[in-house]
Amino acid sequence: MTNLTHPFLDLDGDKLREECGIFGIIGNGASGANAAATCALGLHALQHRGQEAVGITSFDGVEFFTRRGLGHVAENFASGESIAELPGHMAAGHVRYSTTGGAGMRNVQPLYADLASGGFAVAHNGNISNARMLRQELVQKGAIFQSTSDTEVIIHLVATSRYPTMLDKLVDALRLVEGAYALIVMTPRGMIACRDPLGIRPLVMGMLDGNTVFASETVAFDTVGADFVRQIEPGEFVEVDFDGAIRTHRPFGTVKARPCIFEHVYFSRPDSIFNDRSVYESRKAIGMELAKEAPVEADLVVPVPDSGVPAAIGYSQQSGIPFELGIIRSHYVGRTFIQPGDATRHNSVARKHNANRAIVAGKRIVLIDDSIVRGTTSLKIVQMMRDAGATEVHFRVASPPTGHGCYYGVDTPERSKLLAGRMDLAAMREFIQADSLAFVSIDGLYRAVGLKGRDNACPQYCDACFTGDYPTPLTDLALRAQDEAQLALPVGKAALV
Amino acid sequence: MTNLTHPFLDLDGDKLREECGIFGIIGNGASGANAAATCALGLHALQHRGQEAVGITSFDGVEFFTRRGLGHVAENFASGESIAELPGHMAAGHVRYSTTGGAGMRNVQPLYADLASGGFAVAHNGNISNARMLRQELVQKGAIFQSTSDTEVIIHLVATSRYPTMLDKLVDALRLVEGAYALIVMTPRGMIACRDPLGIRPLVMGMLDGNTVFASETVAFDTVGADFVRQIEPGEFVEVDFDGAIRTHRPFGTVKARPCIFEHVYFSRPDSIFNDRSVYESRKAIGMELAKEAPVEADLVVPVPDSGVPAAIGYSQQSGIPFELGIIRSHYVGRTFIQPGDATRHNSVARKHNANRAIVAGKRIVLIDDSIVRGTTSLKIVQMMRDAGATEVHFRVASPPTGHGCYYGVDTPERSKLLAGRMDLAAMREFIQADSLAFVSIDGLYRAVGLKGRDNACPQYCDACFTGDYPTPLTDLALRAQDEAQLALPVGKAALV
Amino acid sequence: MTNLTHPFLDLDGDKLREECGIFGIIGNGASGANAAATCALGLHALQHRGQEAVGITSFDGVEFFTRRGLGHVAENFASGESIAELPGHMAAGHVRYSTTGGAGMRNVQPLYADLASGGFAVAHNGNISNARMLRQELVQKGAIFQSTSDTEVIIHLVATSRYPTMLDKLVDALRLVEGAYALIVMTPRGMIACRDPLGIRPLVMGMLDGNTVFASETVAFDTVGADFVRQIEPGEFVEVDFDGAIRTHRPFGTVKARPCIFEHVYFSRPDSIFNDRSVYESRKAIGMELAKEAPVEADLVVPVPDSGVPAAIGYSQQSGIPFELGIIRSHYVGRTFIQPGDATRHNSVARKHNANRAIVAGKRIVLIDDSIVRGTTSLKIVQMMRDAGATEVHFRVASPPTGHGCYYGVDTPERSKLLAGRMDLAAMREFIQADSLAFVSIDGLYRAVGLKGRDNACPQYCDACFTGDYPTPLTDLALRAQDEAQLALPVGKAALV
Amino acid sequence: MTNLTHPFLDLDGDKLREECGIFGIIGNGASGANAAATCALGLHALQHRGQEAVGITSFDGVEFFTRRGLGHVAENFASGESIAELPGHMAAGHVRYSTTGGAGMRNVQPLYADLASGGFAVAHNGNISNARMLRQELVQKGAIFQSTSDTEVIIHLVATSRYPTMLDKLVDALRLVEGAYALIVMTPRGMIACRDPLGIRPLVMGMLDGNTVFASETVAFDTVGADFVRQIEPGEFVEVDFDGAIRTHRPFGTVKARPCIFEHVYFSRPDSIFNDRSVYESRKAIGMELAKEAPVEADLVVPVPDSGVPAAIGYSQQSGIPFELGIIRSHYVGRTFIQPGDATRHNSVARKHNANRAIVAGKRIVLIDDSIVRGTTSLKIVQMMRDAGATEVHFRVASPPTGHGCYYGVDTPERSKLLAGRMDLAAMREFIQADSLAFVSIDGLYRAVGLKGRDNACPQYCDACFTGDYPTPLTDLALRAQDEAQLALPVGKAALV
Repeated sequence: MTNLTHPFLDLDGDKLREECGIFGIIGNGASGANAAATCALGLHALQHRGQEAVGITSFDGVEFFTRRGLGHVAENFASGESIAELPGHMAAGHVRYSTTGGAGMRNVQPLYADLASGGFAVAHNGNISNARMLRQELVQKGAIFQSTSDTEVIIHLVATSRYPTMLDKLVDALRLVEGAYALIVMTPRGMIACRDPLGIRPLVMGMLDGNTVFASETVAFDTVGADFVRQIEPGEFVEVDFDGAIRTHRPFGTVKARPCIFEHVYFSRPDSIFNDRSVYESRKAIGMELAKEAPVEADLVVPVPDSGVPAAIGYSQQSGIPFELGIIRSHYVGRTFIQPGDATRHNSVARKHNANRAIVAGKRIVLIDDSIVRGTTSLKIVQMMRDAGATEVHFRVASPPTGHGCYYGVDTPERSKLLAGRMDLAAMREFIQADSLAFVSIDGLYRAVGLKGRDNACPQYCDACFTGDYPTPLTDLALRAQDEAQLALPVGKAALV
Repeated sequence: MTNLTHPFLDLDGDKLREECGIFGIIGNGASGANAAATCALGLHALQHRGQEAVGITSFDGVEFFTRRGLGHVAENFASGESIAELPGHMAAGHVRYSTTGGAGMRNVQPLYADLASGGFAVAHNGNISNARMLRQELVQKGAIFQSTSDTEVIIHLVATSRYPTMLDKLVDALRLVEGAYALIVMTPRGMIACRDPLGIRPLVMGMLDGNTVFASETVAFDTVGADFVRQIEPGEFVEVDFDGAIRTHRPFGTVKARPCIFEHVYFSRPDSIFNDRSVYESRKAIGMELAKEAPVEADLVVPVPDSGVPAAIGYSQQSGIPFELGIIRSHYVGRTFIQPGDATRHNSVARKHNANRAIVAGKRIVLIDDSIVRGTTSLKIVQMMRDAGATEVHFRVASPPTGHGCYYGVDTPERSKLLAGRMDLAAMREFIQADSLAFVSIDGLYRAVGLKGRDNACPQYCDACFTGDYPTPLTDLALRAQDEAQLALPVGKAALV
Repeated sequence: MTNLTHPFLDLDGDKLREECGIFGIIGNGASGANAAATCALGLHALQHRGQEAVGITSFDGVEFFTRRGLGHVAENFASGESIAELPGHMAAGHVRYSTTGGAGMRNVQPLYADLASGGFAVAHNGNISNARMLRQELVQKGAIFQSTSDTEVIIHLVATSRYPTMLDKLVDALRLVEGAYALIVMTPRGMIACRDPLGIRPLVMGMLDGNTVFASETVAFDTVGADFVRQIEPGEFVEVDFDGAIRTHRPFGTVKARPCIFEHVYFSRPDSIFNDRSVYESRKAIGMELAKEAPVEADLVVPVPDSGVPAAIGYSQQSGIPFELGIIRSHYVGRTFIQPGDATRHNSVARKHNANRAIVAGKRIVLIDDSIVRGTTSLKIVQMMRDAGATEVHFRVASPPTGHGCYYGVDTPERSKLLAGRMDLAAMREFIQADSLAFVSIDGLYRAVGLKGRDNACPQYCDACFTGDYPTPLTDLALRAQDEAQLALPVGKAALV
Repeated sequence: MTNLTHPFLDLDGDKLREECGIFGIIGNGASGANAAATCALGLHALQHRGQEAVGITSFDGVEFFTRRGLGHVAENFASGESIAELPGHMAAGHVRYSTTGGAGMRNVQPLYADLASGGFAVAHNGNISNARMLRQELVQKGAIFQSTSDTEVIIHLVATSRYPTMLDKLVDALRLVEGAYALIVMTPRGMIACRDPLGIRPLVMGMLDGNTVFASETVAFDTVGADFVRQIEPGEFVEVDFDGAIRTHRPFGTVKARPCIFEHVYFSRPDSIFNDRSVYESRKAIGMELAKEAPVEADLVVPVPDSGVPAAIGYSQQSGIPFELGIIRSHYVGRTFIQPGDATRHNSVARKHNANRAIVAGKRIVLIDDSIVRGTTSLKIVQMMRDAGATEVHFRVASPPTGHGCYYGVDTPERSKLLAGRMDLAAMREFIQADSLAFVSIDGLYRAVGLKGRDNACPQYCDACFTGDYPTPLTDLALRAQDEAQLALPVGKAALV
């Protein structure tokens, strides 16, 4: 789910940011497990997917309860008091990136509404690429929106659907929706988990002492002690009731899946299983592909911590060049320190990363990072290595050049700020001042995730950020371009506040 | 506006509580006045009408801005930063009693919605007595409510009205509404202020350097430096645009007004003009009526501070018995002090009021209070006088016995907790342990506000709390009684949260 | 106790400010009373004597416990948790005016130290006028100060005294001290309460269910349910142990007392007994003296609320002119509201006080206030009366002109900012723009407190703020004047922080 | 510096905790560097040495300024406002572990006192092992303590020293002191940095654009952009004035140094240079020694993140067994999550560390950790590996068994809670349920830091936590044992609060 008003929120850091993680649990009460407490722990394991806001909704058989907060899960849901506000055997939650302030709080999920058919709560990972258009149509009919979230469109479509059952209403609503969504829905009758027909965003299912659990990544199951069962298939709707009965539906028929390949590259935790494959092994394999595609003579392989470590181990094992921690990462990050003087070298990168001089001095090094987005961090790290005495710095990137924005729930800078959106390889090398620069090829990436290469006729993954090949129409983007041309007033910005 | 879920919220204190105050200003920008700053100051002057939450919405010609907070106006809107968030030449605000917590914050007014016709903000003083029924009908049609406030019903009725202009939509919506309302509405075209056909809740109009201002009481005009022009008439709709043009409408035709007589007794500040009469003078006149109706031989007239003071001055002037401060009120109230021992005498009343022993000891005193609600405070104050050495304590009340609940925006205990709802005069005197007890008569009260007495055929005021004579149907109350008989689940409790 | 670094802290308001209130209780545990809870309630009743900080220290037979906070007693000590931190049968506390911030917190009393003889806690009302000199001497010998409070000087003097018992150490220390002090001291052996030889600051003793209590004013006894026994005499030391044994000492021999007469005028609550006389009756009597000394033909007597009310009642009863609330005071004060426009009339006075137009318009009024300090508020109130339509405004002040600073624990502006310090009567009347102005005479004031007049040879009260007749030397003031002449660096400003 | 009242504060985690980091800067103002901002950044780089409280004191040529806070440096000193409170060209700061609450705040360093000779501020890393005895003597003479910190003893000794210069006073004071200290002292004349004669705690010196800087570790110089010059020698006093003149003194003559060897094992950051040697290289060398001393046949070398990583790389390089991330560490730690059910497996370790199942399953693994303190974490990690499918788990520890407490500024559990304090090797292996367990030998450790082995006659390091060979007397420990035998009351617990 994204904030309609800030589709291109610029980055503080220099990484693409997955925008959400979701978790759900429904039980029969037999195991004595506390649904909300389990949900909090599961979301904590998904904290890397969204660090600015968190919410949990529970249902106790009669009423729904919601609690939300800005900041981390541990800040909002670790205490007994907070969990006590969320009774019942069913709960679902959401972590997200968020704009701050009062308006932001209304956008914190799960969203909840009292419909004529009863309570309806939804947690959404993804982005609806025609939300703006759908919203305008709903407002014309008298609908009043409370948030600026695209997710609320789904609720209004469900509320006004004429189908009799909740599953039918939901399918009816989602037929009008275009884009990416992994949803966990709660109603007084149970839980529904589903993924869009292309399965762009991830969603997995597990079992915990007789309770059914859903999560964005398998690492959440490890943390709560659940067993991983399988992923929800693209286009699949899984319905679970309070007796534990599980029914599955494929209302959109057979479709060719396009899951997000960047989950392998960076978003998912290395200890998760994504699309039936170990993320850690995928990353190591990318490093090995890189060592084959772009070998170099050097003394040390140095990862940019922490996300570059698995690929660096792969590169080291393939090349035989020793793996060393040439950069040490601080665990204490403070973004806004006042600069003591005018020295430009001692910047935010220096507070987060420090060269391990004793190791680096006098050496030829291969730096491994997972991706390059705007390139500013890469430049600083290359300089840091040279300042520490490295004689050569070769930069290797464990993904292809990122030259296109994402409209499926990932926070990407505008194309003009993406290094690969405005430069070719030689210019990029020049920009980051490395002795050499190489990215893994798109086919190398596909090989690293266990395929023979990219099937260009019918790609196995969504790789639009590398290729610009978007698997859905982008209706709002087209509308927005039109509006900007007409200097129209903002539409749908405010809501029932 | 009241909270649908807590219509009978019990009292901490022992007073009826007016639930809201509203203030609005619309200007042409010529005077340089800051609308939001003026609004904050006006609400500060109305703080006695609602102390738990406050909100202001402004409009700058393009967008609406809203800021809300729990607590007093000065805590939330005194700073330049808070006012800077609310630009523009039009603003309206609201103070209220509120339940605490997140849900409460959603109910803090003004409420705002983006309708197809543009932005719509509303501040409401009063209570809609068929809100529950209207809400159920709207939800059946797919409407999604965000608050538990009855005021939101008005917004949905406006959103789905088929009339073309905003004034027509508003009148169309309010034709369906039953109960009490004084409203200030903002749209991109200007401000509309209106009162229900009976004019139960107050609303007055003034001018400030070419800007039009509206408020619940005239004291707000004194504070902001505006001139009082006139009250909004019952059933009147006043429309003001940004050029300062003022149009008035009477869509409900001619009706017989029934303004709330308790505004004279307690709700309004003594320095306000209500229904074209000085509140202070009304209260003094009630004291004089009491002295005539219930004289007593005594040494001192002692007011229960602060609300009993004007009536006590009137009683003293009429009777010739000296007025003295026999009770001193602390300006520092802390409600939840731990009791140091088991002594029952030293209670919350003792922390708020203290007997002025040197004055009271050995004297026969006439205590004057504005009203008796549950009687618990009256009992404690009588005891305090006796402990301080008073030889006789005669209790005189500046209103008739309060035996009935209010459904028009006043927080009243259940009838079974109203002293006059369960006892006759003799039992009440026994309960509060006074040597004598008298209430002003209903006709005495009407005389004190300048009339010849109550016109029983066609009463000039709403006095339902004294007489049980409700001027409107009470649809929700009837529905609720029906529901309770059927043990139905709560309806309309939660909303889009 | 005052802050050495800001002896002349300027006033926000326009009143002299008593700087402290103190309360102590020592029991044998038989009554089950909780000492700290009683202490909190007693301090709450003394809140008018110091509103910016509060602290309580208790002793449980083994250890001392201290808790402090900025703000009101109710904000810091109303909860069970706060009281639970303060176990034991002995407790003493302090309310004060304070500078904000961390440094201020160190100055919040009671102060506590571990001496070689055991724990020592002290709460101090007053000001030591040679504290600076004593402090310099102590620092030369290696003493390390933690606060900027003059009270800490007493602790260091006690710590280095060579006398054997705690009472002797304390007397030894106080022999070196000059100025005003009412002290409550706690040691592991019991409580000592004492007043300086002139008895400038007040201190009274009471009994509560077998416990001994001390307080700055009797109103604290009313609030906690204690019986008032007597005042501590000037120069008296009262020692109470845990068996309830009370011993009294007069180490300074017989002295002529000079208690502060301003306690009658303004500092004490009207329901307190000060120097064996009802404060309310003193104030009424001042109003009567004023009516005799400065009569005027008028329609109404109007008090400046709330402190002018008793004198106004006295003036009204003496003169026969009716008493009316011509000014209504808001109970909700917000000091820093942004001004909405440029209108100078609508200022902070307008937010706190409002003219009761309906009463005032067309009338000749006598305004009664307790004192005039800088005169700015008086001017605004006179203007407010005229704006409301008063035809004549006669100002009567229930104290003589305040022309001199206080060095005994009262916050006074510099002499150049005192209206009576820079103008004669005619100029003052001109400044406040009243039709006439009169102050009660110094002899009228002494008559109102029950004497025949001021004994100029040997005055019965300290009245230095009116007369400039200081009853003690002012050593630090002389030193400071010397320092300023030499442009010396600040001494003793910081401390062990 | 440690808290006298909690010398054996138990651990939440299962690591020894270095208790402090210190940083200082003194300049001539020529470079335009802001001393306090540099100090904040330097402390941020030392955050791993103390995470619960932080303070900075600066001097602007006239006055000293201090600001302190609980929590991290970035929470307290990142903003421009916080730095603006600390003007001047000289500043020193301190990070520490601390008990929470008001009392704790008084213990947050730097400590400051106004002495007769002028201001005196001190930041202290270490622990004085006769502080209790010295304090009792000082209190007998009338000294009043404000904190419970042993560091305050130094200030009182300086305050009462009869030597004329500040350096002489400081040496005079420290001659009486026994234990470990690295100090940064500020006076109006400049900065003094010194280490105790054994040099137990570290302190290094650097240069930044003409300013002299001091820090606990060289990593702080990297972060602020300073050049590392040399370490302060054991027993050395370095005096720097505002002209940049540096003088060095050796008042204790020649001594044999005993720096803390645990800085190499765990306390220092791997990118620091300690005792003229790269900490990262020392740790890798320990891993290599381990691989030689305790080889094992296995498939993977897995570090316990993050502190076990360098030794694991060394073990892998020496043994040829591949290095893999078999455990993934969460960057989001929340310590107090409510447990959802009764499952004991899903504990705090599971929230912080997660097995990388895909890598571990079916493999024989060598786990490398830096140390074992209580053993509880080691047990959970071995279980986690087995649950993830590891067929064999061999545990290798990069330090000798930790069987003795530290009294030199490191938070150690009581001996009875140290695993090596109560068990032999076989029992420890049994306790943690590993297939095999080995610790590096004491001589292996000395070899890894570049020596031929431990010189038992005259050890080159303090290794008391491994050997029980304490290089100083432990006076307070002996006194305490005596007191406990006599059931004496606590002494010196409270202070001037």
